[in-house]
Amino acid sequence: MSQFSSTAKSSVSSAPLTNNSRTASLDASTHAKAIQLATVTLEMCATAGVGNPTVAISATHLFTTLLYQSMRWDVASPRDASADRLILSDAAFAPLLYAACADLGVAGFVDGSWRALTTADLATFGAVDSALPTTPTPGTLAIVENAVGAHGAGLSLAVGHALAARLESSARRVFCVISDAELREGQLSEALASIIEERLTNVIPVFVASALSTNDRANAVDGIEALVNRLNAMGFETISFDGHAPAQIRDAVELTADASQSTSKSSKPKALVARCIKGWGAKSLQGGSWSGRVVTGEKLATALQDLRNARIGLTNAFAIELSRPIPREKTPQNPAVSMHAALEATPDFARAMKDADMLAVYQGGRLSTRRAMSLALRALGRAHGGVSVLECDARANMVSDMFAADRALTPRFNECRSAESHMIGVACGLASAGRVAIASASARSLVRAHEQLEVAARSGVSLTVVATNSGLGAIAEGASATSTNDVAWFRAIAAQQDASGHPTGYLLQPSDAFAAYALTLAAAAHEGLTIMRLPAGEQEFLYNAETTFNLGKFEVLVEGRDLLIVTAGAMVHEVNRALDDLDKAGIDATIVDLYSLPFDEAALLDLANANGGRILVIEDNASGALASSVSDACTAAGDPFIIESMCVRTPIVSARSFDEALRIAKLSASDIVARASRLLGIDTKS
Amino acid sequence: MSQFSSTAKSSVSSAPLTNNSRTASLDASTHAKAIQLATVTLEMCATAGVGNPTVAISATHLFTTLLYQSMRWDVASPRDASADRLILSDAAFAPLLYAACADLGVAGFVDGSWRALTTADLATFGAVDSALPTTPTPGTLAIVENAVGAHGAGLSLAVGHALAARLESSARRVFCVISDAELREGQLSEALASIIEERLTNVIPVFVASALSTNDRANAVDGIEALVNRLNAMGFETISFDGHAPAQIRDAVELTADASQSTSKSSKPKALVARCIKGWGAKSLQGGSWSGRVVTGEKLATALQDLRNARIGLTNAFAIELSRPIPREKTPQNPAVSMHAALEATPDFARAMKDADMLAVYQGGRLSTRRAMSLALRALGRAHGGVSVLECDARANMVSDMFAADRALTPRFNECRSAESHMIGVACGLASAGRVAIASASARSLVRAHEQLEVAARSGVSLTVVATNSGLGAIAEGASATSTNDVAWFRAIAAQQDASGHPTGYLLQPSDAFAAYALTLAAAAHEGLTIMRLPAGEQEFLYNAETTFNLGKFEVLVEGRDLLIVTAGAMVHEVNRALDDLDKAGIDATIVDLYSLPFDEAALLDLANANGGRILVIEDNASGALASSVSDACTAAGDPFIIESMCVRTPIVSARSFDEALRIAKLSASDIVARASRLLGIDTKS
Repeated sequence: MSQFSSTAKSSVSSAPLTNNSRTASLDASTHAKAIQLATVTLEMCATAGVGNPTVAISATHLFTTLLYQSMRWDVASPRDASADRLILSDAAFAPLLYAACADLGVAGFVDGSWRALTTADLATFGAVDSALPTTPTPGTLAIVENAVGAHGAGLSLAVGHALAARLESSARRVFCVISDAELREGQLSEALASIIEERLTNVIPVFVASALSTNDRANAVDGIEALVNRLNAMGFETISFDGHAPAQIRDAVELTADASQSTSKSSKPKALVARCIKGWGAKSLQGGSWSGRVVTGEKLATALQDLRNARIGLTNAFAIELSRPIPREKTPQNPAVSMHAALEATPDFARAMKDADMLAVYQGGRLSTRRAMSLALRALGRAHGGVSVLECDARANMVSDMFAADRALTPRFNECRSAESHMIGVACGLASAGRVAIASASARSLVRAHEQLEVAARSGVSLTVVATNSGLGAIAEGASATSTNDVAWFRAIAAQQDASGHPTGYLLQPSDAFAAYALTLAAAAHEGLTIMRLPAGEQEFLYNAETTFNLGKFEVLVEGRDLLIVTAGAMVHEVNRALDDLDKAGIDATIVDLYSLPFDEAALLDLANANGGRILVIEDNASGALASSVSDACTAAGDPFIIESMCVRTPIVSARSFDEALRIAKLSASDIVARASRLLGIDTKS
Repeated sequence: MSQFSSTAKSSVSSAPLTNNSRTASLDASTHAKAIQLATVTLEMCATAGVGNPTVAISATHLFTTLLYQSMRWDVASPRDASADRLILSDAAFAPLLYAACADLGVAGFVDGSWRALTTADLATFGAVDSALPTTPTPGTLAIVENAVGAHGAGLSLAVGHALAARLESSARRVFCVISDAELREGQLSEALASIIEERLTNVIPVFVASALSTNDRANAVDGIEALVNRLNAMGFETISFDGHAPAQIRDAVELTADASQSTSKSSKPKALVARCIKGWGAKSLQGGSWSGRVVTGEKLATALQDLRNARIGLTNAFAIELSRPIPREKTPQNPAVSMHAALEATPDFARAMKDADMLAVYQGGRLSTRRAMSLALRALGRAHGGVSVLECDARANMVSDMFAADRALTPRFNECRSAESHMIGVACGLASAGRVAIASASARSLVRAHEQLEVAARSGVSLTVVATNSGLGAIAEGASATSTNDVAWFRAIAAQQDASGHPTGYLLQPSDAFAAYALTLAAAAHEGLTIMRLPAGEQEFLYNAETTFNLGKFEVLVEGRDLLIVTAGAMVHEVNRALDDLDKAGIDATIVDLYSLPFDEAALLDLANANGGRILVIEDNASGALASSVSDACTAAGDPFIIESMCVRTPIVSARSFDEALRIAKLSASDIVARASRLLGIDTKS
């Protein structure tokens, strides 16, 4: 595909060189390789008709230096624990990464199996089933560990990887390449702040800074000088250099070599700012108007000629072949405890309560699901060294407190402050580095991380996300602490399947401490994404040590024949409260705790049919989750069903308790009895 | 409620005072009032059992100085165009604001009408239907214009208000009080950057900075010194002062007095950093462990005694009664053009195309919905001076380009860079200041603003949010540019109602340029939230100048009797493409373009019944929106329906075109024919 690879190879020289001439020839070789990759990148984008090539080629020297010279990694196993990582924050750099990977022979997933890519594979860029999708995605190219491309989100993933490396005492570094277009995203600020707080010297943000932002000349706020000032003010040691001067790049990256191994509190995280030109080497593409456009036809021919011309001044006869990257010695894999063995070693809920001196509470028969989860996390953390727990503002949230307070587990706890999107990115990074990550925040603030959660689902990582104070239970803390709509979006994830037909995520809504404890363990053991929504407050025990909970199942609490009541979470208790009055009204109801989405639809349909096709779905959330899931499951069969939905129809502004909120929302036990009676045509007035 | 108001009144002195003694007595009076408000705040939180009183009272001197002395506003009309504004970013300050408002007699909505509040009303804090909900919400207290309380989100609202003030050439300032707990939220960084870029000197971020963060001693990243450095590095003139020294507070605020009126490019935005003590005045509450806790019983008694003791050293016999706030002269309201008149003056789509020299394109019969919307926005902007358009990364998105390029409209265009949450906050601020705000970003990145959109819905503001590149149409730009799940969450908003029974939002999905043009105007005219999802690419014209589009309606494209096909957006065209083959298969289908959620359910049920209860719902999105809406509407009736859903079941990783994506997702015309045939039991193999 490229006209330069053969030229580059012919310029290999084995003659001994002086230091100066060696540097000169290394520079010349870097230029030659950089121009080769830029050429291929322009061609790839033209063929595919997609991409942002002028942004991509602005980083061509940077990628060449990182991938061929400075990073220590093995082309044959780029995900070895010893290997330096390169994470693209902006997917615009993807074709450039692909060009280098094809040149180096990194493995891609082609026609159902893995093999070393060649430049011929670059023609598939962006095509269906390509190893080189427009947005880098795990499972396609061996070097890609996470789905990326959400603007401003890559550095959080890199922080996750770096935290994993620190836990493994690995010397690997994580480079994260960030574009101009991302500078305003708040999540980037969140990630930068966390690097400073954690003194994470093994993650290195690399800014590809140009005078041109996406849409016009960069303003004072996003200019290079402003960026350097901002980074320095935060506490970074910022190294700014000419992004097209090979020696300067090498020197700058060299400065990060030792830092990664330092654990001293005085060592400062470093940030690299590469001053780059959009469309470097192709003068005809350097106007702002070219940013974001694919170059084809005559314009492409001119740009390629520009690049050829650029080569003349920059490379020379002494150019040497750039060697392949030098790997570190491979890190032997720790013999990982299997999750199965860890679960065997984890006590059951009753035992965990006893171990925590909470036997009296246990006998009292009430506990918050949050506390049950906290117990489960500590127990699991002790049994499995790979478990990491993250929380935003832990003190307010309190899912992780027992884990965090256990001295043996503290190093595996990450307080992410009030930075929800960042936290999910970090958790995703940890998970893709092989850790079992459990991340918690309030349901209300977790909606900020929706995009990161979709990225996690797309990455196929094993991750448990905990949304506390879901539904109406926290209404006393205000409307700004209450979240009822998030569930609709979570359900959309639970309703999709990955390529193997597994749900892209499970949504779990436990109703008591037994369920919360058991589902926490089941979620952690699940290979994939799980979202647990926990109600606020304390709940009475509904279950016991005999009850089993499985992803995709539900629990029948009462078996009747007149009406199927489907509910979950805190509302299970309200439905229970209505039981006596339902009975008095002559209603023999079946009650299902639908704690998991998706669920066993055939089994639920059987119950619905056994109850005359009459279904009442009750949730303290907006519609769109439970009721719609049940409707969707029932309507496909073509049998007649009456499905009525009781949910939060109007957002609640103010109430001092869950009970008050249920009353306003018309979801209290007496409302349930009235609605059930109406549905069955029973006159309750008499 | 407070034991101090009478004491404070008795200390009024009318004797002439020297300047020094005047300052001293003003300080003494401020202390007296601050202690009064702190006392009431602790009592309110104790009564309600909610709140974060130690955080609230840390700002008691600040609120006293701002509300009683420095801000220019009229207690009787706090929302007058001339009045300085106070926006709480952290809802923890709400009880303190309420204490001051009750003391000053600001109007609240009590038992169905507005009246001046008294301290007796404070007992209702957080109760159902209170004028003083835990989270400040519009419609309850006259001074509250926006729902607040999302951490880190308040400053964006304030920026919106400040932009509105600038457009009105008003001298009002907007103060935004931000707590420690919010410093890590990325949206705060986004808002700060935009203030610098816009040189907005009339919005003043006020940080209540304490040594204690929410969960432990503030770390190096969030400490006061780090905050000041960060603000200065961004380009603020930062004024740091003792938050409990009345004269220092007055002087600091005084420095912002002129700045608000400067439009000079050299004037620097100012930020105030008040060094405050959590639980000021109540020594017994000053440990970190008290943060976030309500203080009751003996602890409360001790705290109140602490406050009484504090008063002794800080107030003196010369304390004067703090005067009521001094209002500016009222700003006469501009005679606003009514939206009705503006719509009358707005050309129809054909005329707008002609005005834009696009007659040839019009005759070609194809245009992107994005371009049609751009035309509508410019036409509407010319007809109505209150229209403001916002966009994130406008060049990439291109909904606003015609508006932004029109010199008369440029001042009403706001480029918000890649900062989606911030943009929605700004739009919400503009809308609550009376402007018609239309804010656009890609559907993919707009999910970051979910929380801000919920806040907008809760605020009841008139706001149009545009999500471009929705569904599978932008798949060539990569999975990171594709958004199929956002629709489920938008639908949850569209399925809820406000207190008056109106939908909390409409979700609109136009399928062609006529629909996009008309729905843009309808959305702008709607008093409430509207979310428009635009497909990527160009679409053929389906409609003409005769077609009318209304929120809550749908369009019947074809009337049949065998099968009701319900679809929207880009998929309407794919269904059209299937028509011939449906006909050949002997299927006489009804086709509905369900461009609005919610929709006229009774009318759709009639159509369903006229088609034998057989419904096929087709969308290039995740399930949870169209199909679930139709299911929910049908299942309540109890009639037998067969509803099948064709949607994106598996996220698409890579494809070079919409057509390729439809093929992989099994949503192409031939898939539609096959599915319809199967549903009707027709053997297509023969």
